[in-house]
Amino acid sequence: MADKKKRKRSKDDEAEELPFKSILEPDAVILELFKSYVSSSIKAAAGAGGASSSSSKPLTLADLSLSSSCREVADLSLSSVQTEIETVIVQIARSILAGDGFSFNVPSRAASNQLYVPELDRIVLKDKSTLRPFASVSSVRKTTITTRILALIHQLCLRKIHVTKRDLFYTDVKLFQDQTQSDAVLDDVSCMLGCTRSSLNVIAAEKGVVVGRLIFSDNGDMIDCTKMGMGGKAIPPNIDRVGDMQSDALFILLVEKDAAYMRLAEDRFYNRFPCIIVTAKGQPDVATRLFLRKMKMELKLPVLALVDSDPYGLKILSVYGCGSKNMSYDSANLTTPDIKWLGIRPSDLDKYKIPEQCRLPMTEQDIKTGKDMLEEDFVKKNPGWVEELNLMVKSKQKAEIQALSSFGFQYLSEVYLPLKLQQQDWL
Amino acid sequence: MADKKKRKRSKDDEAEELPFKSILEPDAVILELFKSYVSSSIKAAAGAGGASSSSSKPLTLADLSLSSSCREVADLSLSSVQTEIETVIVQIARSILAGDGFSFNVPSRAASNQLYVPELDRIVLKDKSTLRPFASVSSVRKTTITTRILALIHQLCLRKIHVTKRDLFYTDVKLFQDQTQSDAVLDDVSCMLGCTRSSLNVIAAEKGVVVGRLIFSDNGDMIDCTKMGMGGKAIPPNIDRVGDMQSDALFILLVEKDAAYMRLAEDRFYNRFPCIIVTAKGQPDVATRLFLRKMKMELKLPVLALVDSDPYGLKILSVYGCGSKNMSYDSANLTTPDIKWLGIRPSDLDKYKIPEQCRLPMTEQDIKTGKDMLEEDFVKKNPGWVEELNLMVKSKQKAEIQALSSFGFQYLSEVYLPLKLQQQDWL
Repeated sequence: MADKKKRKRSKDDEAEELPFKSILEPDAVILELFKSYVSSSIKAAAGAGGASSSSSKPLTLADLSLSSSCREVADLSLSSVQTEIETVIVQIARSILAGDGFSFNVPSRAASNQLYVPELDRIVLKDKSTLRPFASVSSVRKTTITTRILALIHQLCLRKIHVTKRDLFYTDVKLFQDQTQSDAVLDDVSCMLGCTRSSLNVIAAEKGVVVGRLIFSDNGDMIDCTKMGMGGKAIPPNIDRVGDMQSDALFILLVEKDAAYMRLAEDRFYNRFPCIIVTAKGQPDVATRLFLRKMKMELKLPVLALVDSDPYGLKILSVYGCGSKNMSYDSANLTTPDIKWLGIRPSDLDKYKIPEQCRLPMTEQDIKTGKDMLEEDFVKKNPGWVEELNLMVKSKQKAEIQALSSFGFQYLSEVYLPLKLQQQDWL
Repeated sequence: MADKKKRKRSKDDEAEELPFKSILEPDAVILELFKSYVSSSIKAAAGAGGASSSSSKPLTLADLSLSSSCREVADLSLSSVQTEIETVIVQIARSILAGDGFSFNVPSRAASNQLYVPELDRIVLKDKSTLRPFASVSSVRKTTITTRILALIHQLCLRKIHVTKRDLFYTDVKLFQDQTQSDAVLDDVSCMLGCTRSSLNVIAAEKGVVVGRLIFSDNGDMIDCTKMGMGGKAIPPNIDRVGDMQSDALFILLVEKDAAYMRLAEDRFYNRFPCIIVTAKGQPDVATRLFLRKMKMELKLPVLALVDSDPYGLKILSVYGCGSKNMSYDSANLTTPDIKWLGIRPSDLDKYKIPEQCRLPMTEQDIKTGKDMLEEDFVKKNPGWVEELNLMVKSKQKAEIQALSSFGFQYLSEVYLPLKLQQQDWL
């Protein structure tokens, strides 16, 4: 206790009364605790036969003997994509010359063709596919669109440039009519060619930012994320030009919201507890998901998630963790295995004595979403998550990360997160 | 012509047929043309008595003899904000001791108290203000909220940290009830203290990114925006920690949309034509507006805007240029004078032969917004803008920046923008 008294206190006297501040150990102790957690979890993973993601050889679809065969896509180089497209077109030319007509064989992306694989902890596509013939009234339009998209992607391969989905749509508005049509066919084309959408050089808008103990190259420029001020570095939209990741961080802190990110960036939390802080500012976008996965895979760091205590916070966690249904064919490349739910968890509301007026009543829709989530495989496989979600649905209360501000603006960075690390309180 | 034929062509043969590609001069010629434009416009401004924003002494409210007196706020240091708050509170204590009770004198931010000043080309507040007494049923709540916000801002001054509006709301949900109430009083407090909202250390979420020929410091770190890959640098939320801007750019290119920004960033357009490229990804946020203004003021560069050809594109331009009505008290600090409308302009649709199918019909709401804009002072003072907007409303057609992709993905960076610069085609 004497030791703790000597620690530098905030000028504010009321800080003494902050819940749990008094039980915080010195930073060095917390860091040692964390390091021993990391090394023990690596050992445990090795003991479990290398099945965990922390080990050097993660499981792939091919390692499993599944009853139904499944389909996954891979990151392909631009020249491979080009070759794949040319192969498809040559096949079709042969089919036409042989008198068998013109049709594409397109993998089905429907929900009925999706499968959650517990061993991989993500959704994959089963192998059903449908024929898309040109000589049919019902599919002639889609076949034409597919051909056009293939031609456009082929152009991107030749020019070695990236474009957005919106750009793609605008190259032939007359044909595509609206963007949902070109977007859907773009996903079909990814599946057909067996490559990720980012391999097609079609990128989504960038939203995410990263700050902290990370150095990486973006399009040839070396970026040091400890020297990015408070704004941080915008996460590049084209992951294929990101490389050379280096870090002395102990963990990756995945933050749902902008406001919490800014608090931590301004306080340079990553200098007190070496970490990389990343946020997609709400719904995870493809660029941020790819970037998080790349960090996790290359740096082999634990990922701790800080999200709102509501069903959507958990949903966001699930999209990072096991993918969205819409892009399940690409789940191997977009998902980050083994994300830990740090907070704000429903049980934190009482534990941290979040005042009643900072908790919000859940709406009917919230409660329904929460109950639906309880049926999801990725929740069910984690008993701790089920317990927390049950508590949320039962208490009918939710809370944002900002609710911690009721104890002072810096409670998040000065007490809540350090204590979470000290108590290794994640699920 | 012989010279032009020798220029490196795209591999794509169809590029030869791209509209206007054949009349493009070599880059060096375009750059010389642009440099002479800049120097002649500086001379013209000097000749006009230094009234233009390009000169070193921009007009301020104090320079004008307006019939009604107006109110503007200034950037204050944290310690000045602290002093201002303490002054207000001491005055109130004196008033209470003198038996005159407890009330704030709050400037009115209503539309009726706003004035467009053509000489300054922005909206300012007139000097009407209202009393907010504590001892009145109708204002007791607002007076209490005002007091609480003052106390919280005072805390920020002491701790020297930044928080978001959301954080502020969560410090006392019971009192504020919903965030619109704390947000509104926050703007009141800015006006009362006579300082900008960013001086209060309350920041908005960051959205914008910047890339190109700019070096600046963010929270003490030097950032070189030519070395930010394709992702660019996230614009810092707290402008007071941004400084030391240096640049060899010839102009600032303000882009409405993410997709166009990414095209230009990937093509490193700023290396072909030295410029700084900035976008707020849609609606301008406060951080991007402050950043753009700071660049314009410190670097004295022309600002060229690339927005969609629709009423909202022009509206976005107007928010950067002369402010939003909601924050008119802060217009001097948030607005960037003398932004040029480069494109996509309604007249470009025919000039650049944008295919019919890439033009979209305007909705009733679009047309109404367009007509409303024709009544706005900031449009009326620029005859070229009026003409373009009239053309838009008459033709009932709009187009996005991406419509240029119908000529190929790189038409924007390889033909459209260079030609605009060559022909100095902006309004």
